[in-house]
Amino acid sequence: MARIVQKYGGSSVADAERIKNVARRIARARDQGNEVVVVVSAMGKTPDQLIALARQVNPSPKERELDLLLSTGEMVSIALVAMALDALGYQAISLTGAQAGIRTDSLYSRARILDIGPERVLQELRDGKIVIVAGFQGISEEMDITTLGRGGSDTTAVALAAALRADRCEIYTDVEGIYTADPRLVPEARKLPEIHYEEMLELASWGAKVMHNRSVELGAVYEVPIWVASSFTDAPGTLIHGGASIMEVRNKVRGIAHDRNVAKITVVGVPDRPGIAATLFEPLAEAGVSVDCIVQNASLNNITDLTFTVARADLERAMHLVEPVVQRINAVRCAADPNFAKVSIVGTGIQNAPGYAARMFRALFEAGINIELITTSEIRITCLIRDDAVDQAVQALHRAFELERPEE
Amino acid sequence: MARIVQKYGGSSVADAERIKNVARRIARARDQGNEVVVVVSAMGKTPDQLIALARQVNPSPKERELDLLLSTGEMVSIALVAMALDALGYQAISLTGAQAGIRTDSLYSRARILDIGPERVLQELRDGKIVIVAGFQGISEEMDITTLGRGGSDTTAVALAAALRADRCEIYTDVEGIYTADPRLVPEARKLPEIHYEEMLELASWGAKVMHNRSVELGAVYEVPIWVASSFTDAPGTLIHGGASIMEVRNKVRGIAHDRNVAKITVVGVPDRPGIAATLFEPLAEAGVSVDCIVQNASLNNITDLTFTVARADLERAMHLVEPVVQRINAVRCAADPNFAKVSIVGTGIQNAPGYAARMFRALFEAGINIELITTSEIRITCLIRDDAVDQAVQALHRAFELERPEE
Repeated sequence: MARIVQKYGGSSVADAERIKNVARRIARARDQGNEVVVVVSAMGKTPDQLIALARQVNPSPKERELDLLLSTGEMVSIALVAMALDALGYQAISLTGAQAGIRTDSLYSRARILDIGPERVLQELRDGKIVIVAGFQGISEEMDITTLGRGGSDTTAVALAAALRADRCEIYTDVEGIYTADPRLVPEARKLPEIHYEEMLELASWGAKVMHNRSVELGAVYEVPIWVASSFTDAPGTLIHGGASIMEVRNKVRGIAHDRNVAKITVVGVPDRPGIAATLFEPLAEAGVSVDCIVQNASLNNITDLTFTVARADLERAMHLVEPVVQRINAVRCAADPNFAKVSIVGTGIQNAPGYAARMFRALFEAGINIELITTSEIRITCLIRDDAVDQAVQALHRAFELERPEE
Repeated sequence: MARIVQKYGGSSVADAERIKNVARRIARARDQGNEVVVVVSAMGKTPDQLIALARQVNPSPKERELDLLLSTGEMVSIALVAMALDALGYQAISLTGAQAGIRTDSLYSRARILDIGPERVLQELRDGKIVIVAGFQGISEEMDITTLGRGGSDTTAVALAAALRADRCEIYTDVEGIYTADPRLVPEARKLPEIHYEEMLELASWGAKVMHNRSVELGAVYEVPIWVASSFTDAPGTLIHGGASIMEVRNKVRGIAHDRNVAKITVVGVPDRPGIAATLFEPLAEAGVSVDCIVQNASLNNITDLTFTVARADLERAMHLVEPVVQRINAVRCAADPNFAKVSIVGTGIQNAPGYAARMFRALFEAGINIELITTSEIRITCLIRDDAVDQAVQALHRAFELERPEE
């Protein structure tokens, strides 16, 4: 008997029929003799409808109240899933975030889980019940309801799996697993049977939208094997894990990530003296604008150009913050361009092996794509390109690294 | 500075515009220098929609899960009302039943309030906030969410008013107060400026649908003055109170109640011996069927007829329970008739004063209405009549007791 945590996203419980389908899948896991804990999100469009309702009474509602409002979406889902299981003849019980012991800090709308008191869940499992837990929500020390922000339900599932020492966490979603590239761009993209946490993190943070980084990180820290698969088919999914042996032997590109949501800011003619970078980036950090791909050209006569990227939605705000600094530091000017994208190759070991970077650059060159910036991590090489070249770039890289070929 | 508890029903918060209207009314009470606690119901059609959704996944859902599902309706309302007040520049905070300390037993769908721990509400009031509490819901000792059943939000409001030692409880609804009769039947019906708890209880239990008995009883026990008024107009409402002086001096019919939802069962040829009534009514009590208006004719040759009434919805179930008993006790037969109604005159002191009953019977007789049964309480006289005669009966009684004339 294994103990498993399953998670079903909003599209998997979008209406009564889908909820019944999910109940049948849960029942099957139970029939196989497992202890089953299920985390569910709010039904399909419910969060958007609730937010629209809130805006009708207050254009900028307080986050505490918005969190309570949104948390009702998952409460509706868990009650319905428990009822659907009951209709199939299975003993099930729904638990809100508070009842399941999901304790968080008080950062409304983006609360972090502090710890999980799994006593109630364990008691219900001992009583032979399937336990249905509301994702995305928790309770603060002040007994106020919080929500976990983006990727919240995945985070609930992985955190619960860790707290319950579950054998695995199964994330059911509307895709069949993790692919070597976005199948909408690359028809021959191949589903990966398994992938390392670190590789998944790079794929996720650089644009693969299947799972949020936060839950993958949590899985890595607590060594929870995460199984990603479709809630609509029975196709085998992808296992995200941390098997130590893989790290050593593997030396291969695992996937191509892309992110269209990139804007570039260039500060031209920056006096190259100590502290300039801090002066420039501190206001952005304080305003919560994430900056990445920072590149400083070699200094010529103590004058340099500084280029960095931000999310497209942050561009206007970033420019407002940067412009006064440009004046203050006596730089020449700053320029913004919203139409960029990133493409990355990801694979454990590629940074330490020769030839991957060169092969990437050549593939893009042969496809006629100009590289604006290059950044790298231990297991990733990223090129900044114009956003109208993304499809072509991903396809070219997928071919260049022969990702359609199954791994041995 | 007074401390008041206001309650707004589902139709008063049915959409964003009405919620904003409610927020303006709450703000006005605050502007007048009061400490304000507000209890709200779920938005208009939300409970029906949630129940319909539940039935799509399970025709007979478990009450525990249904309670959680329904409780989300009030959580949505409190968040929206708090947001609307915030938009007007008022400090407001929403509290779920659990957060407001509404502790109940575990009788899902019809939980009773065991006690209220008002610490959090008091703390928020001390912090200068308007406190918005979810009606209709509480939390059991096992930390499960319960709902209070019919009249639940009114009960929450009156119970909170008692626990907070509020100066009064204001129930805002879609009618302007308590009338001498249903204004849809009697156009000249008059709104009562005040009414005694006991009179209100008789009016409510015998068919006046403005407030549920449960909350009036609670108000009577804890001596909470209850103000009933419209949430859509500024017309003065009705004060339900227990001023001792009234009881002595008043000797007048205060209102006419009616209830169309009555079925009559007659057991014919019952051997008149001790224990027969218990044999007959015990199975009904055990099955939760409420029986009233029990009348036993004078016994002739130790054979009697026994007549009683039940709610129309309970008739079939009641007959199933009574028929086997009829055989067992050797009664002749039992007969059911669903088409009855009750009309009542209510007023403190009328039972002890001569002439009221006679005047009632004459008024009905002159209107050509046959009286099937008569029952009385300390402050009420009720006649069972055919249900097609209700309108005429209520109008005739209203005229006979000159209820359109203002009291001195």
